Amino acid sequence: MEWEDLARELSQQTDSKIVLLVMDGVGGLPADGQSELEAARKPHLDALAKAGVCGVSDPVMMGITPGSGPSHLALFGYDPLQYQLGRGILEALGSGVEVGRNDLVARGNFATVRGGLVADRRAGRIPTEENVRICGYLNAHLPKREGLEVRVFPGKEHRFVARFTAEGLADALTDADPQKEGKAPVPTAPIAPEAAKASAIVNRFLCDVADVLKGEAKANAALLRGFSKFPSIPTMPELFKLRPAAIANYPMYRGLAKLLGMEVIGVGSETADLFDALEKNWAAHDFFYVHYKKTDSTGEDGRFDAKVAAIEALDPFIPRLTALKPDVLVVTSDHSTPSCLKGHSWHPNPFLLISATAGVDDVAAFTERACAKGMLGRFRSISAMPLMLAHALKLQKYGA
Amino acid sequence: MEWEDLARELSQQTDSKIVLLVMDGVGGLPADGQSELEAARKPHLDALAKAGVCGVSDPVMMGITPGSGPSHLALFGYDPLQYQLGRGILEALGSGVEVGRNDLVARGNFATVRGGLVADRRAGRIPTEENVRICGYLNAHLPKREGLEVRVFPGKEHRFVARFTAEGLADALTDADPQKEGKAPVPTAPIAPEAAKASAIVNRFLCDVADVLKGEAKANAALLRGFSKFPSIPTMPELFKLRPAAIANYPMYRGLAKLLGMEVIGVGSETADLFDALEKNWAAHDFFYVHYKKTDSTGEDGRFDAKVAAIEALDPFIPRLTALKPDVLVVTSDHSTPSCLKGHSWHPNPFLLISATAGVDDVAAFTERACAKGMLGRFRSISAMPLMLAHALKLQKYGA
Repeated sequence: MEWEDLARELSQQTDSKIVLLVMDGVGGLPADGQSELEAARKPHLDALAKAGVCGVSDPVMMGITPGSGPSHLALFGYDPLQYQLGRGILEALGSGVEVGRNDLVARGNFATVRGGLVADRRAGRIPTEENVRICGYLNAHLPKREGLEVRVFPGKEHRFVARFTAEGLADALTDADPQKEGKAPVPTAPIAPEAAKASAIVNRFLCDVADVLKGEAKANAALLRGFSKFPSIPTMPELFKLRPAAIANYPMYRGLAKLLGMEVIGVGSETADLFDALEKNWAAHDFFYVHYKKTDSTGEDGRFDAKVAAIEALDPFIPRLTALKPDVLVVTSDHSTPSCLKGHSWHPNPFLLISATAGVDDVAAFTERACAKGMLGRFRSISAMPLMLAHALKLQKYGA
Repeated sequence: MEWEDLARELSQQTDSKIVLLVMDGVGGLPADGQSELEAARKPHLDALAKAGVCGVSDPVMMGITPGSGPSHLALFGYDPLQYQLGRGILEALGSGVEVGRNDLVARGNFATVRGGLVADRRAGRIPTEENVRICGYLNAHLPKREGLEVRVFPGKEHRFVARFTAEGLADALTDADPQKEGKAPVPTAPIAPEAAKASAIVNRFLCDVADVLKGEAKANAALLRGFSKFPSIPTMPELFKLRPAAIANYPMYRGLAKLLGMEVIGVGSETADLFDALEKNWAAHDFFYVHYKKTDSTGEDGRFDAKVAAIEALDPFIPRLTALKPDVLVVTSDHSTPSCLKGHSWHPNPFLLISATAGVDDVAAFTERACAKGMLGRFRSISAMPLMLAHALKLQKYGA
């Protein structure tokens, strides 16, 4: 019996409310002896650490640096080694493209083909406005095919997402991308027999694009890679009997939340927007995923002081959160993003949990080192969901 | 997806260097209130603990006492529950016998057979020199067989290793050993159909031995058990893209290292030899396994003071190690060997790690109790390799 089976069997719907506040990438490393969390003045977050129990969590396993997809899946109770999200689906979700169960998506590049060879894989990095124009033209002029709908969605510069909607499409397809310039464009090929139909559809699409765009100077062909279907993944209402809401500004996190059956609440880019939305939607849900991005983006940029400031900027909003009196409150990150590494890392996340059934340990600050001494110890992030459900009294007893 | 798949996918070759110093069996238990590590004066090892982060690691899982094979496999990133090394292969490696992919090896006893029954399973524990003479005689006089090479290698007293080299040998064979005296010798039998050829070859060998040795007073027959082939195990260069070196004096550890694709560097039995070899081979490798045996052998003998002395004897060499400035330095043991137990135990290993990306915790001594409060927490030894690779920046990101 695995956690997922246990969850299905033991979870129960109750009125108790859980808030999971994800300070994206907040874990860091010391510079001049102090990490970003240690350097930040954050009295309210430290008060939370004092009021509950703390620990540290490994997103995937010790030593593994995760992308945002796997690290969030783990926090939501899904094994990130079992569920792998294709690049195409993440690109689509990240671009705000709706993806349904009959859709096959891929990441695309507009490219320049001359004399039958790929002269530029990025079509001279055409401006984004050009890309918007070309995608609009393609969507209007691609020939209609029976039982198939195709749409392209512009990204930045030469990038786009292609979405194929039809019955029976599979994503076991090789990339339609020669990877190098000076080579001929390559068609996709099925890796498994069930992808034969998808392969034929994609290759006809590539011909259609070349035909429709033959008048373009630069963007006169398309390359596609990372074919992926909507993953077959049980939703949070299904597994955990939750009515979950996602309060997040970035498309990637909103897309992932939608995929897991959360109601996605649109918010602006201000920090206050997150808490406005939380208050406004408090009655309608029992699980709230609140995503704070700035701690990650400043870390990715290698800006230690800006990351400290991002932590300090969130802190004053904590009283608005606690005023709602959630039955379970967790503050943690999906993965660490130390400023000195300018990227995600494998270091475990500081983790704090407050509930009436959690007790209190002697951790007095929300930092990597303080949490590492907490009563929750070191655990994998996939344990966050069973912990939250348990403290919300949403899990029944296992066995007699 | 398992760790091994992740390792294959995510590991990358870089110039950074890792040193794994294994103080075999160093973990112990208190006598008069202090463990061997607590009683030892070891300022340099304690300084390492202060400079990095610490934890404790369970070789296989909590409560399980491992042999040297499984405990080392775990440290090298191999699941000791997945890869089981046959006794024959360990005996062969331990005796310095070269074992290739076409070899079948077994542990042997010379025995005395009288009137068709095994009168003495150990041939009166003949002296080792007798054994050497008999093995030499056998290797010279055993009849040659087409497509087969057989060699016997003397061990201590009545023990030897038999090595059969031929195409298509399998190790699914029952022991050719009646286990009790007063019974007739038993032939081996195949447990699986693919071992039929090996079975026939082994049984003919046993007849040949009895024939060639019929003039011996004591050692006039052979018993064989623990048939094993070279295990099918991916190498460290394959899995982790390392160029690993093993600096170890004992045949068993050298053999295991060779099996995992390490370059084995021959060293003498003096402690200084380990560090001479490390310095001399520093440029040519990016992973160094340095094996210090005395902490285990003194523990096995139950000599508390001698084990303390073994720890103190290693300590002055630590500055030679740190002078090389490895990017990642780990000091730990493969398993614990408390003097009071006179053998391996299930207690977790003290573990310390130093690197630019590790930070510092407040552990101030390299002891069992101090490390148990360290920031790395408690983990399975199989996590040591992902941790070392991560801190050496040799692992790419998982997922997008």
